[in-house]
Amino acid sequence: MADPPERSVSDPDEEIMRATYRALQEHGYADLTIKRIAEEYGKSTAAVHYHYDTKDDLLATFLDYILDRFVDTIHEVETTDPEQRLELLLDKLLTEPEDHHDLLIAVLEMRSQAPYKEAFADRFQQNDEYVRYMLRTVIDHGISEGIFTDVDSTHVARALMTIVDGGRTRAVVLDDADTLATARRTANEYVNAVLRPDTDGDREK
Amino acid sequence: MADPPERSVSDPDEEIMRATYRALQEHGYADLTIKRIAEEYGKSTAAVHYHYDTKDDLLATFLDYILDRFVDTIHEVETTDPEQRLELLLDKLLTEPEDHHDLLIAVLEMRSQAPYKEAFADRFQQNDEYVRYMLRTVIDHGISEGIFTDVDSTHVARALMTIVDGGRTRAVVLDDADTLATARRTANEYVNAVLRPDTDGDREK
Repeated sequence: MADPPERSVSDPDEEIMRATYRALQEHGYADLTIKRIAEEYGKSTAAVHYHYDTKDDLLATFLDYILDRFVDTIHEVETTDPEQRLELLLDKLLTEPEDHHDLLIAVLEMRSQAPYKEAFADRFQQNDEYVRYMLRTVIDHGISEGIFTDVDSTHVARALMTIVDGGRTRAVVLDDADTLATARRTANEYVNAVLRPDTDGDREK
Repeated sequence: MADPPERSVSDPDEEIMRATYRALQEHGYADLTIKRIAEEYGKSTAAVHYHYDTKDDLLATFLDYILDRFVDTIHEVETTDPEQRLELLLDKLLTEPEDHHDLLIAVLEMRSQAPYKEAFADRFQQNDEYVRYMLRTVIDHGISEGIFTDVDSTHVARALMTIVDGGRTRAVVLDDADTLATARRTANEYVNAVLRPDTDGDREK
């Protein structure tokens, strides 16, 4: 059975989001214009403006779109085993598909504008809360099953997002793909230390 | 004996750097102009251009200036005890003096431009290498004294910088001062787990 396309291709919002994605990959955030998005969309700037008043309105919606896509990939994580699920979540958060480096750059540019643009700040805040909620849920699940140590799951979720955001920032600033692998390894060491202290060495407790 | 002023106040480079600092705090990176720097400098834009051809030349020098200032604060760390020294380094890296939040914002803006501006990328790369060198040195010192576990100090320095950069990015994007404290706590948990695994639990010290 063939999978249907992700969403209806004739949905103009979806098409504009895809065009924005390509325009961001090509031009980055600072040099992005409605004209360049319209070029990728294959229609006039008026056709884009019909849906979005300003570039920033469009980009705020784009941030929602990215989060939706990320949530979709999370739903692909089918296991409910807390250890496996946490590993897979961290994999998704710290893996960079090859053609996505430009998007990582554009997102860091938008993140740096959050102090000046409330619509961006709101999205990044919501995005972060959602991902932390998922991390907290799987950690709490592991605690309730006696697999993980009884930790402050709110803090551990924040700590893991600190490692994730550090890896992503460093991937852009240092232009070094190893930074994501380093962050993944760091997250793993942190999880082992904080959630599974007994697996370390020969201690018994 | 009174300390002399940090540097000669009549040094125009130093004065322009201080003016740039104030202009960045007030306007951020995107809205920074030579005119605004000149206003803080109290001289004409020509007086600024006499020293720097472009805004980006000036800002690349400003990134050197920030690193120099950071190195100065590191030299204030007088202890050679590896444990104390590592703690103090992490304190310096993850403490935000109250009036420096605007600088943290401006630096993230500049970091996000590293993929487009080689002079910025070079500075951030050098800065990162220098701080990692300091971290590695203190970790290796602790290993040689038998205080720290014999770890891959190159990786541990990278891991700690991942946590530092994550905390700084989150402080800007989420506009939440607790993010630096969370990162500091995470760094501490990581150091305890990786460098002092045996002190966990029934320690005696």
